[in-house]
Amino acid sequence: MDLKTYLREKKDLVDSFLVDYFSSPLAPPKLQESLVYSLSAGGKRVRPVLCIAAYEACGKNAQEVVPFAAALELIHTYSLIHDDLPAMDNDDLRRGKPTNHKVFGEGMAILAGDGLLTEAFYLLSSSDRHQPSGLLKVIHEVARAAGIRGMVGGQAQDLLSENTEPDAATLAYIHTHKTAALIAASVKIGGILACTSEAHLNALAEYGENIGLAFQVIDDILDIEGETEVIGKPKGSDEKKKKMTYPKLYGIEKSKEKARELIDNALKALEVFDEKADPLRAIARYLLERKN
Amino acid sequence: MDLKTYLREKKDLVDSFLVDYFSSPLAPPKLQESLVYSLSAGGKRVRPVLCIAAYEACGKNAQEVVPFAAALELIHTYSLIHDDLPAMDNDDLRRGKPTNHKVFGEGMAILAGDGLLTEAFYLLSSSDRHQPSGLLKVIHEVARAAGIRGMVGGQAQDLLSENTEPDAATLAYIHTHKTAALIAASVKIGGILACTSEAHLNALAEYGENIGLAFQVIDDILDIEGETEVIGKPKGSDEKKKKMTYPKLYGIEKSKEKARELIDNALKALEVFDEKADPLRAIARYLLERKN
Repeated sequence: MDLKTYLREKKDLVDSFLVDYFSSPLAPPKLQESLVYSLSAGGKRVRPVLCIAAYEACGKNAQEVVPFAAALELIHTYSLIHDDLPAMDNDDLRRGKPTNHKVFGEGMAILAGDGLLTEAFYLLSSSDRHQPSGLLKVIHEVARAAGIRGMVGGQAQDLLSENTEPDAATLAYIHTHKTAALIAASVKIGGILACTSEAHLNALAEYGENIGLAFQVIDDILDIEGETEVIGKPKGSDEKKKKMTYPKLYGIEKSKEKARELIDNALKALEVFDEKADPLRAIARYLLERKN
Repeated sequence: MDLKTYLREKKDLVDSFLVDYFSSPLAPPKLQESLVYSLSAGGKRVRPVLCIAAYEACGKNAQEVVPFAAALELIHTYSLIHDDLPAMDNDDLRRGKPTNHKVFGEGMAILAGDGLLTEAFYLLSSSDRHQPSGLLKVIHEVARAAGIRGMVGGQAQDLLSENTEPDAATLAYIHTHKTAALIAASVKIGGILACTSEAHLNALAEYGENIGLAFQVIDDILDIEGETEVIGKPKGSDEKKKKMTYPKLYGIEKSKEKARELIDNALKALEVFDEKADPLRAIARYLLERKN
């Protein structure tokens, strides 16, 4: 299979949905402009594509899952807007463009994030194509992964751990919660919506947790080894912000080994699937080689 | 009926639930401490009590609806934490206590708000006592009322309208969205969860929209006429922040008249209900006389 074409096609599905969704006025114009600005700032749509790929791995049609995939991107985008705020990571640039609060002001950036997060749940509870009981499970899973039990918990621990000595338990908590939780949930809800078997659902969860963690470990490595123009932010920014990272605790070679091991686990988990899971397999391998 | 006892009993139900809910560790300790700080800062639990009273008006038992009522308080509390931030209303005090960011820092306050909002949806999607289709409707209604189509939209317009000349359309937008939307939804979801008839549901929606708007108009009046120690914030703070308010546009007498009219509409809407709606009626009348 041609992964590049696959990724572009699925990204286009999500982008078209988002453009269409926000083409009618849903909010005060300035607020809507602010959230559309960040939504269309050139993300790779990793979480939506994983959700779609998991749904397809279960033998279903991509089109049916696009609104759910898009909701994941709303949540991811909200987290970036809030994360960039002066009180958090204080970043002026994101993917080479001025961050939301730099363009619209801090107040509007906070509200844009709040609005995207809430709209995600509006979207997740909108569908009449899927079983209500399945949708409830999806909402529960997303809220768990995105909130204090997941991403927000990880962000808080990340913030609390700046300038402290790295330790293995704290680092594992931050990475599994801050990044891996929502990535894992993205894969899993694809399986829930496809009403797949318990065994397949567990395999997707296992795959998701492993690539989610790998994604963050590789992010840490790229922050040291990547090129600024490719990764879209100044390299060494973790070091500058005294962030707790994998390479800092384990060194760069051990971190690469850890990433490879996680990807191997992810691929192994997919053994219960047939060739319809090939995109998920290709994405896992691709993560190891990614440059941004 | 004795409204004071009623309000205290229902508030106690919600408070006990919240204490119990956050007695186990769900998040990094500092984050949990931060959100519990704001949750237990002495709110009147207006939205939860309205939700319970609407549920009871439909002949159901309060206990069954408490987790949903509590979820509304999580959302209200998140909105207060974010609203108090320096980039928003920049308030140091809330109900006479230092605001969340004053105690825990801005970063943690942003995350506490994000976490409360997300946890509300976790809670709303947790129940196995109610029909999944009803729960989905509840989640949809709450997300609509709390997000860019409701409260967040109203907050954004409020922020954008500071220092501008008041006009009727903008003021109506701000008030119906910023405050009334979530109050109206609180009443309505009580009816949805009780699986009441379309006619009763419409009556509850009508009641909720009217008291929601009355609540905000009276808030504006209290900001001018109330006593600092009773309302818990310095009086005249709207004027100081150049907020667009009812009295500013219509004068204080016309605003009081408007509030009375809204309460009359609310009471009229309840005519389809029997005496089980007496608490809703008493709450509406009480709003007119409230001092904080």
